[in-house]
Amino acid sequence: MRTEICERFGIEFPLLAFSHCRDVVAAVTGAGGLGVLGAVAYSPEELDRELDWIDRQVRGRPYGVDVLVPGRIDPSAAAPGDAIPAAHRDFVAHLFDKYGIPPETEPSGVARGGEGFGGRVTQQGATGLIDVALRHPVALIASALGTPPPIMVDRARAAGVPVAALVGTVEHARRQVVAGADIIVAQGSEAGGHTGEISTMVLVPQVVDAVAPIPVLAAGGIANGRQMAAALALGAEGVWCGSVWLTTEEAETPPAVKEKLLAATSRDTVRSRSRTGKPARQLVSAWTREWDEAPGSPGPLPMPLQLVLAEEALARVVAAAERGGPGARELANYFVGQVVGQLDQVRPARQVVYEMIEEFAGAVERMSDITGG
Amino acid sequence: MRTEICERFGIEFPLLAFSHCRDVVAAVTGAGGLGVLGAVAYSPEELDRELDWIDRQVRGRPYGVDVLVPGRIDPSAAAPGDAIPAAHRDFVAHLFDKYGIPPETEPSGVARGGEGFGGRVTQQGATGLIDVALRHPVALIASALGTPPPIMVDRARAAGVPVAALVGTVEHARRQVVAGADIIVAQGSEAGGHTGEISTMVLVPQVVDAVAPIPVLAAGGIANGRQMAAALALGAEGVWCGSVWLTTEEAETPPAVKEKLLAATSRDTVRSRSRTGKPARQLVSAWTREWDEAPGSPGPLPMPLQLVLAEEALARVVAAAERGGPGARELANYFVGQVVGQLDQVRPARQVVYEMIEEFAGAVERMSDITGG
Repeated sequence: MRTEICERFGIEFPLLAFSHCRDVVAAVTGAGGLGVLGAVAYSPEELDRELDWIDRQVRGRPYGVDVLVPGRIDPSAAAPGDAIPAAHRDFVAHLFDKYGIPPETEPSGVARGGEGFGGRVTQQGATGLIDVALRHPVALIASALGTPPPIMVDRARAAGVPVAALVGTVEHARRQVVAGADIIVAQGSEAGGHTGEISTMVLVPQVVDAVAPIPVLAAGGIANGRQMAAALALGAEGVWCGSVWLTTEEAETPPAVKEKLLAATSRDTVRSRSRTGKPARQLVSAWTREWDEAPGSPGPLPMPLQLVLAEEALARVVAAAERGGPGARELANYFVGQVVGQLDQVRPARQVVYEMIEEFAGAVERMSDITGG
Repeated sequence: MRTEICERFGIEFPLLAFSHCRDVVAAVTGAGGLGVLGAVAYSPEELDRELDWIDRQVRGRPYGVDVLVPGRIDPSAAAPGDAIPAAHRDFVAHLFDKYGIPPETEPSGVARGGEGFGGRVTQQGATGLIDVALRHPVALIASALGTPPPIMVDRARAAGVPVAALVGTVEHARRQVVAGADIIVAQGSEAGGHTGEISTMVLVPQVVDAVAPIPVLAAGGIANGRQMAAALALGAEGVWCGSVWLTTEEAETPPAVKEKLLAATSRDTVRSRSRTGKPARQLVSAWTREWDEAPGSPGPLPMPLQLVLAEEALARVVAAAERGGPGARELANYFVGQVVGQLDQVRPARQVVYEMIEEFAGAVERMSDITGG
């Protein structure tokens, strides 16, 4: 395929795969797309090890690294653990009691996050990860939240690595370009994780027009080849997919969560502040309902405080769910987009790529038939 | 263009235009699409006159009629005026006072609705309108809300007229097919008016797969040719557009509302129950904010009670806004989708059609170039 993104990265398909699992990243890059590793759950040392592994797998093919840099953060983020009010800790204890999570449950090692997480969702923390990434042959640095700080852009530029930035509005897209972003990822409200309120269908053409000639990737609502074709019809030069990898063979998604993802319909997600403090789309679960609707809820804290509180608690929840606790299974959730309703089987990541590209080609052929071309 | 919808209706472009204005309906049909008149604001006698006029304009070319049949309605709908609680009437009086609407303001004749509106949003009311429609050479009857009642399907069938039904979920689509719908309109959450929560990008392919071989039209987020191409890439056989006609030359949209539509961005809509009692996307305004967020709000009534209360009140608001009242302008709003951010000029409806089709062709050509076809 020939798009600006294919040419820039020397890839066969303009398909970027965001994942926290190195295996998915390597598999998508190996299949002709471009894997992007979500780095926020790793310490700099851990990230270095993961990227060493990826380097050995992809043998020169391109991959990227994604960090989380919030535009505005709570000043108490420096020592987030201390800043969490007693009422919020008590509410978590109440949930653990109500849903039968033994308080001594160790957090699941698979559900990354918890301690240290909050500290990395800062400019300083992100910079440490970027420094590690730039010591590897990364093809792309992405910033999933907020405007990339000048230091991030400067270091990436110096290393000759393009910077991609996720946006949910036209205004943010313009701001990101001013801040130095080389690629804009226009992410619709149907996406998993932190999203705005404007849908992919509406957002993408507006962002494409606003930032031309900067290339735009479409994100949100894209998990099959028809959706990829739609994204390119909207003017995107490629797509950025996250949710579709969560149920792949390679994904380290905890089995209890994977089961919920496979069973969910597109009605089973919600944009909630209960997991990070900012609106993020995720599976609806007892966790989101209790925080967002229960009369006794103190309401979510601002980012990153809620993130610190929630990730540690949910890592324990997942560990308990893995041991079969029914209450824990009710609470367990994960960031995922509305495409979750399409995910009903476990496939290798490579197969997901090939099926998307095959369906994409079919959609383009159908379009040509419609116009009699 | 060649799609199932083009062949079924003998139209050039698979572009259906929903509008309350007969001029838009006739213009789109005349330009090679298919105009659909929203009938709910009319009495049977008025509808008959409107359709007479359209018949003379379109000279045999196809057009449709849309009615509103809620699946579940409040039993008090029979005499909705009496069933509105005093607290809700008082809240409207409070808003009129706060925003400086003289209580004696006559409702604007242009903003259709108000008295009689509630009674027509019932099976009986809709059936009366359908009987009128079927005395004209209509090519399509559409039901914008809920499952079409058997009587509607039976009468349309007997007259050889296909029935289209709007849906926001896969489950509703399946139910509509069982109820006898011949065409499904899969409407994403970004659409104006009554919508669900699933975006067009996610909803359309799922509905297409679920109801095949029944043809699906995509609705929500479609106001230019790239968006139309995206919809067809998703598997739709055509598109159903509403918002884009509100700012056309032909539209009877009150000038004060048109101004707000032209100025709005895609962030300026909200799904709110404040206008009909069911979640409907509309311009955010003092009306939606007061009902949805003000501490003193009694909360919206169920449909059709809120519709009766709101349409009459907002017809007065619009009349006051037309006379320049600043508070009235703050309150005024209208049903519109997130594409409102793309509407920044007044164009004839025919030009909108031609520009969409031209951009559509460009998008398809670009797709072929990408695949090297």
